[in-house]
Amino acid sequence: MSDTHDLSRFSINQMTVKQLALPDLAAHCVRLGVPGVGLWREPVREYGVEAAAKLVRDAGLAVTTLCRGGFLTAADAAGRARALDDNRAAIDEAATLGTDTLVLVSGGLPGGHRDLAAARERIADALAELAPYAAERGVRLAIEPLHPMYAADRCVVSTLDQALDLAERFPAERVGVVVDTYHVWWDDRAPAAVARAGAAGRIHSFQLADWTTPLPAGVLTGRGQIGDGAVDMREWRERVDAAGYSGPIEVELFNDGLWARDGVEVLEETVRRYVLHTL
Amino acid sequence: MSDTHDLSRFSINQMTVKQLALPDLAAHCVRLGVPGVGLWREPVREYGVEAAAKLVRDAGLAVTTLCRGGFLTAADAAGRARALDDNRAAIDEAATLGTDTLVLVSGGLPGGHRDLAAARERIADALAELAPYAAERGVRLAIEPLHPMYAADRCVVSTLDQALDLAERFPAERVGVVVDTYHVWWDDRAPAAVARAGAAGRIHSFQLADWTTPLPAGVLTGRGQIGDGAVDMREWRERVDAAGYSGPIEVELFNDGLWARDGVEVLEETVRRYVLHTL
Repeated sequence: MSDTHDLSRFSINQMTVKQLALPDLAAHCVRLGVPGVGLWREPVREYGVEAAAKLVRDAGLAVTTLCRGGFLTAADAAGRARALDDNRAAIDEAATLGTDTLVLVSGGLPGGHRDLAAARERIADALAELAPYAAERGVRLAIEPLHPMYAADRCVVSTLDQALDLAERFPAERVGVVVDTYHVWWDDRAPAAVARAGAAGRIHSFQLADWTTPLPAGVLTGRGQIGDGAVDMREWRERVDAAGYSGPIEVELFNDGLWARDGVEVLEETVRRYVLHTL
Repeated sequence: MSDTHDLSRFSINQMTVKQLALPDLAAHCVRLGVPGVGLWREPVREYGVEAAAKLVRDAGLAVTTLCRGGFLTAADAAGRARALDDNRAAIDEAATLGTDTLVLVSGGLPGGHRDLAAARERIADALAELAPYAAERGVRLAIEPLHPMYAADRCVVSTLDQALDLAERFPAERVGVVVDTYHVWWDDRAPAAVARAGAAGRIHSFQLADWTTPLPAGVLTGRGQIGDGAVDMREWRERVDAAGYSGPIEVELFNDGLWARDGVEVLEETVRRYVLHTL
């Protein structure tokens, strides 16, 4: 497959095939010509951060992102301090793994709170503390706007424009955004925001997932396989490219149906879908 | 309750207490001093449109809205003709019921389609055919933006600004918008859009539901009771009032938990929550 199609920008996010142990994932990426992986903190820590770093380095794989830091909306001092500590640990892990990009899921409204704007300001305050720490370690913070259906409980940053409003308070090489089709595909202002982000060099990651319905309970594990849903993947890839982005294209799916299948089969299918619908 | 609190703008949408038969709903509204009801086509047609009209008229209740017309995104001629016929029937029913407002849920992407902008243009085309028909019968068409989580399968109009972009092609007395807190609460551009809509006299309905998590499978029946969730109801009521709206405030909840309870108890609770959190 890699002989006939250009996989040079393709990256598989570990969560897409979480049933695969990290060594299996690395081996099959090498076999298929997949050059990059996006990693998640929890499975990496289980495996050992140093060991994971060595594994992917020895396999010649690029770590395109580490997911994820964030959850920076706590309103109390103790909660805020815990979040900053955890994010500094995530930055250290990103540096160890050799990735330049830590994805941030900003966090939802604290219990009993109803003020989205105030929560976003607390994120800005946290970024001001974390961005210099990250920069010293060669790590960029990438704010990921999440779909508005997560605004209350996971991420008060719901649009690319909101993410850019936060990012632009900092230098582009320190704080940027993630463009994830699943979260922004519905937004008629997203194309202009992609151009805005690209012009400023703030597209730090480009992730793909398709939008399929009906959504499952909790709406966390319904990210569709590329080509199965409502998102025009090629249009989005061309849009992000036109904005000046030439980096990795990472497929990140959380999907109970895919997780129930053989991981190697899902990986191979994902490569095929990427080639078919994105290139 | 009606002696000590101002329920003059309160309206209960029939779906909030769909376990109540229409005569029971009407009787309890009268008893509680609830002056308005929002009705749905399916239960009204089961009861009989003329009979329902007489029932609410005799009870002295205002019909604040009829839900719903719409589903105007079909790309084929036959589907489009069927949708227009159905909407003309809905307009006739609204006129018979004595409401001036038909709520439109615009419709999702037809199977295999991925072009949201094109689907929105088909809605505009349909409005051009329906708005004069409605106006002749004293009925306004109210475009309801639905939360972006419905963009693929129910409503390609996801924000108040998109709804206004469509409505503004027509006179304000013919086509306006619905402001429903459940659908727009997350949107940092919604406050400006409310002002824009109010200045033009295009807020044709104001509906309340709270945002609670986790969302249920299919995400249709998780609209939270007022005060249970993330939405600052009083702030939204004040915002809509400040935009010049002084019409009914309709509570429309689809909630499996509420539907499993005694309908009269839910109606009374909803009145209390409205008074507590909105006035």
